Amino acid sequence: MSQTVETAFKGKTALITGGMGFIGSNLAIRLANLGAKVTVLDSMIPDYGGNEFNLASVKDRVRINYCDIRDESAIDYLVRGQDFVFHLAGQVCHVMSLSNPFPDIDMNITGTAILMEALRKHNPNAIVVYTGTRGQYGASVSLPVNEEAPTNPKGIYEISNLTAEKIIKVYNDVHGIRSVLLRLSNIYGPRSQMQHSRFGVCNWFVRLAMDDDTIQVYGDGSILRDFCYVDDCVEAIVKSAITKAAYGEVFNVGSDIPVSFLELVKTIVTVAKQGKWEYAEFSAERKAQEPGDFYSDINKIRKTVGWQPTTSLEEGLAKTIEFYGKNRDFYWSKPATKKGSKEIVAAKS
Amino acid sequence: MSQTVETAFKGKTALITGGMGFIGSNLAIRLANLGAKVTVLDSMIPDYGGNEFNLASVKDRVRINYCDIRDESAIDYLVRGQDFVFHLAGQVCHVMSLSNPFPDIDMNITGTAILMEALRKHNPNAIVVYTGTRGQYGASVSLPVNEEAPTNPKGIYEISNLTAEKIIKVYNDVHGIRSVLLRLSNIYGPRSQMQHSRFGVCNWFVRLAMDDDTIQVYGDGSILRDFCYVDDCVEAIVKSAITKAAYGEVFNVGSDIPVSFLELVKTIVTVAKQGKWEYAEFSAERKAQEPGDFYSDINKIRKTVGWQPTTSLEEGLAKTIEFYGKNRDFYWSKPATKKGSKEIVAAKS
Repeated sequence: MSQTVETAFKGKTALITGGMGFIGSNLAIRLANLGAKVTVLDSMIPDYGGNEFNLASVKDRVRINYCDIRDESAIDYLVRGQDFVFHLAGQVCHVMSLSNPFPDIDMNITGTAILMEALRKHNPNAIVVYTGTRGQYGASVSLPVNEEAPTNPKGIYEISNLTAEKIIKVYNDVHGIRSVLLRLSNIYGPRSQMQHSRFGVCNWFVRLAMDDDTIQVYGDGSILRDFCYVDDCVEAIVKSAITKAAYGEVFNVGSDIPVSFLELVKTIVTVAKQGKWEYAEFSAERKAQEPGDFYSDINKIRKTVGWQPTTSLEEGLAKTIEFYGKNRDFYWSKPATKKGSKEIVAAKS
Repeated sequence: MSQTVETAFKGKTALITGGMGFIGSNLAIRLANLGAKVTVLDSMIPDYGGNEFNLASVKDRVRINYCDIRDESAIDYLVRGQDFVFHLAGQVCHVMSLSNPFPDIDMNITGTAILMEALRKHNPNAIVVYTGTRGQYGASVSLPVNEEAPTNPKGIYEISNLTAEKIIKVYNDVHGIRSVLLRLSNIYGPRSQMQHSRFGVCNWFVRLAMDDDTIQVYGDGSILRDFCYVDDCVEAIVKSAITKAAYGEVFNVGSDIPVSFLELVKTIVTVAKQGKWEYAEFSAERKAQEPGDFYSDINKIRKTVGWQPTTSLEEGLAKTIEFYGKNRDFYWSKPATKKGSKEIVAAKS
């Protein structure tokens, strides 16, 4: 890394697709605070996680553009003059993709091709960071899982992420568009949607605990995962964007400290000082879809980018619970657009 | 394999997508001769290889249905009652996919999802065979290349094939649609288009030799490939379709006898008794796209399906040259639809 994060983005332009969503909005805030001129792009598809309140704290310093990643001419226009493009837009639900594969193909694959074609034609010097998922690996062959592991996704959503990654890699190799390809493990923290359980298991457990509800632990709860706090994830994104040796490379972004679901749930209940948990049987369908133990080998990004997570699970959960405690109304109920602007301002933190 | 190819298809229904093309038409002829009720589906996109003459010898015994793989309601209808679905339709040109990724995504990825959704809804008991490409591997990490090798495609076409394969695998695993996933190496032989050099390098060299033209051998001609005669490939397709142990599995279909480009070209010129060859420099672009030595490890299909190629390169080339010698008019010029039907009948072999 020739530059530091603190200076590299000052005065630079950055486009964030899906920037009203969970990770995108946290990234937008970080980049705005680093002095970047941020344009956020989002189509606010209901239930996908876009929430106007997510950017309430920087709304005067970030340009918000509502449009779909598949809006070819708008994308062609918006990529021009961007120094960085952070591509986070997409369908992100495993279960939905199994009953209808077309939104994933359309948004995640065609959408990515539209973005890369726009860059090839109008701004090939931009630096791209793409956020895929650890689901691209499917079941682990050995643990921890490094970037050379086989990729046998268990759903159309995960396939569409793998395909998007490979498309961007071809544009990197053939057309010279410098790109970093990240595979995110379970990211949790502030600004994730809290309305439904379909993505973000850790955040959903946090909601249940904060509602003093009962969290179900499937089987004996021994299945291992790595959980990564969103601020750490954002740091991986911005650091890799300015690391020359990272261009064209795939990196895991996660934690090398595996945690069992049982341990996760117990920690959440302890930190929240609320909620209960109980064991539950796997349904046959859930069992078939369960990829088993997974945790990331993050040595490659540690060595190449100099990144590693610094937030412990307890600390991350405490920050998450504090955020949602303050801003519950903007996440438990419908998005902030239905609230008065006074409330938005009042809830800034 | 519990049944033999000779009896398994008698009276069975089979749908072949892309069935007017190179491999599809050879497969249609084989299945018709095995007593299957064959429906061929093709949209006859110009330059893609569909040629009415390809099925001239079985035209009274095969039902031809002109439609696109993306024609959702037609596909929904056509899959009903099919015992077997052989999915060969698609965009197959590497070079085209690099200047415009959308046809590949649309035909090869969305088209495959349309087919698999149609099967899930209307005929989940059908057996599917999908033909992908060895290009799904990209550059070889070690030789010969087996099915566990990393998949780092060098173009959008190859990515779209990998994605289609993974989509079908998910339908196999999650929805129980029995599917065989083949990765074809360089297939050559009768009924391939001979109008342009964009796909099928071996067939293109055959055309140049038969025109007494000069074949260019890039670099020192030492790059290795495996070439597989189309009848052998068709046998791999039909044999794997009736092998229970093959369902849900990926298999290479190629030859484990690697041949250098120089050796290939010399053999073609010798067998054709025509044509010349010369060394030529790689262009920078061609060099960047060249994945280097590749030849298939076919032990998995040999063990599981009991298939292996039986046609030597000399024999396959002799048959190919004989076929095109007899039927040159239907391949060198425009497709047979522009010819009178008398000529089509006359050329039956």
